[in-house]
Amino acid sequence: MKTAAIDMREDDATAVPPRAVRRKLEIMRGAAAAFRDRGYAGSSVRDIARRLGMAPGNLYYYFRNKQDILYFCQDYALDVLLREARQIVRRPAPPEEKVKALVRAQVRCMLDELHGSAGHIEFHAVSPARLRKIIAKRDAYERLVRAAVEEGVRARRFAPCDPKLTSLAILGAVNWTARWYRPSGVWSPEAIADGFAEFLVRGLRR
Amino acid sequence: MKTAAIDMREDDATAVPPRAVRRKLEIMRGAAAAFRDRGYAGSSVRDIARRLGMAPGNLYYYFRNKQDILYFCQDYALDVLLREARQIVRRPAPPEEKVKALVRAQVRCMLDELHGSAGHIEFHAVSPARLRKIIAKRDAYERLVRAAVEEGVRARRFAPCDPKLTSLAILGAVNWTARWYRPSGVWSPEAIADGFAEFLVRGLRR
Repeated sequence: MKTAAIDMREDDATAVPPRAVRRKLEIMRGAAAAFRDRGYAGSSVRDIARRLGMAPGNLYYYFRNKQDILYFCQDYALDVLLREARQIVRRPAPPEEKVKALVRAQVRCMLDELHGSAGHIEFHAVSPARLRKIIAKRDAYERLVRAAVEEGVRARRFAPCDPKLTSLAILGAVNWTARWYRPSGVWSPEAIADGFAEFLVRGLRR
Repeated sequence: MKTAAIDMREDDATAVPPRAVRRKLEIMRGAAAAFRDRGYAGSSVRDIARRLGMAPGNLYYYFRNKQDILYFCQDYALDVLLREARQIVRRPAPPEEKVKALVRAQVRCMLDELHGSAGHIEFHAVSPARLRKIIAKRDAYERLVRAAVEEGVRARRFAPCDPKLTSLAILGAVNWTARWYRPSGVWSPEAIADGFAEFLVRGLRR
């Protein structure tokens, strides 16, 4: 039962989820959609519950308050992304393929998992202790992107650049999707992932 | 005295400013720094006044409340940017030079004028009527960027792409600077403008 024990670790919301976690994920997605449509400040727990057809009291069984939901959103999305990113960078592939896959993974994580919610970028809204944990995970992801860019520059497959600054441009382009993406819009998450990966990797090439 | 009359138009905060406007700009910059350091929600009018060495009552002479300051920030920054962008696109220059100049202008506007404040991206915080005005100006700027990208694609100087989606990637990379820029950081606004213009225009080229 070692796998199950690992899967249940409190700090890993991405593993095969038990019922309570599945319910939390469902609430998270409803909340993410509310945050996207009305902003974090403009969404109440009552709004989120209504969107899910739940009684607010039922929702409070899973989350103490709105900030709790936001933290879960941010933390879960980063766990999903970090897990995928670590697999990507371990593959024996050229750096341009790695950066492409990282961009695609981040777009999908933001637009599919979180429905393009801006929730994960509302950093000022969580407590300082939780913010430190989120920032540590975000920094770990950013380091993976930067390392892939550095690898390409060192191998002279990418044009000379400041890998840290260039990574910030890449991450910014993707993070900003949370500001404009609408599920009813002209582009699917897949089309956005394709267009962005193509454009951003071309910017790296010599 | 025609110039002075034009300069005083209420909707143009970018012209040679009379004393009251200069004072408003000073308050705006202090507020932008406060919003950058503590977030919009985390900054009070009292914090902003303290940062400027002003009595809060004095600040209330110029702005009714914090939302008023935020709106002025957003509106002023967009006026500055739109004016510069319109000059850029009128120049007889190849599209890659235009896009480079637009990226540089936007980085400078955000990091120099607004000290890297995230204030201008806190769209949910202003009233719906004001938000419509801000969005109209933002859309006008986005159209100028998109038109320059389209021009390059049509002239076959840029790789085939969806100009609207690619423009969103460019704008996102630049807008995101408000999330990570610190005046005490390793890069000057100028260095960021250079690095971003280089990387993003390379992404457009065939």
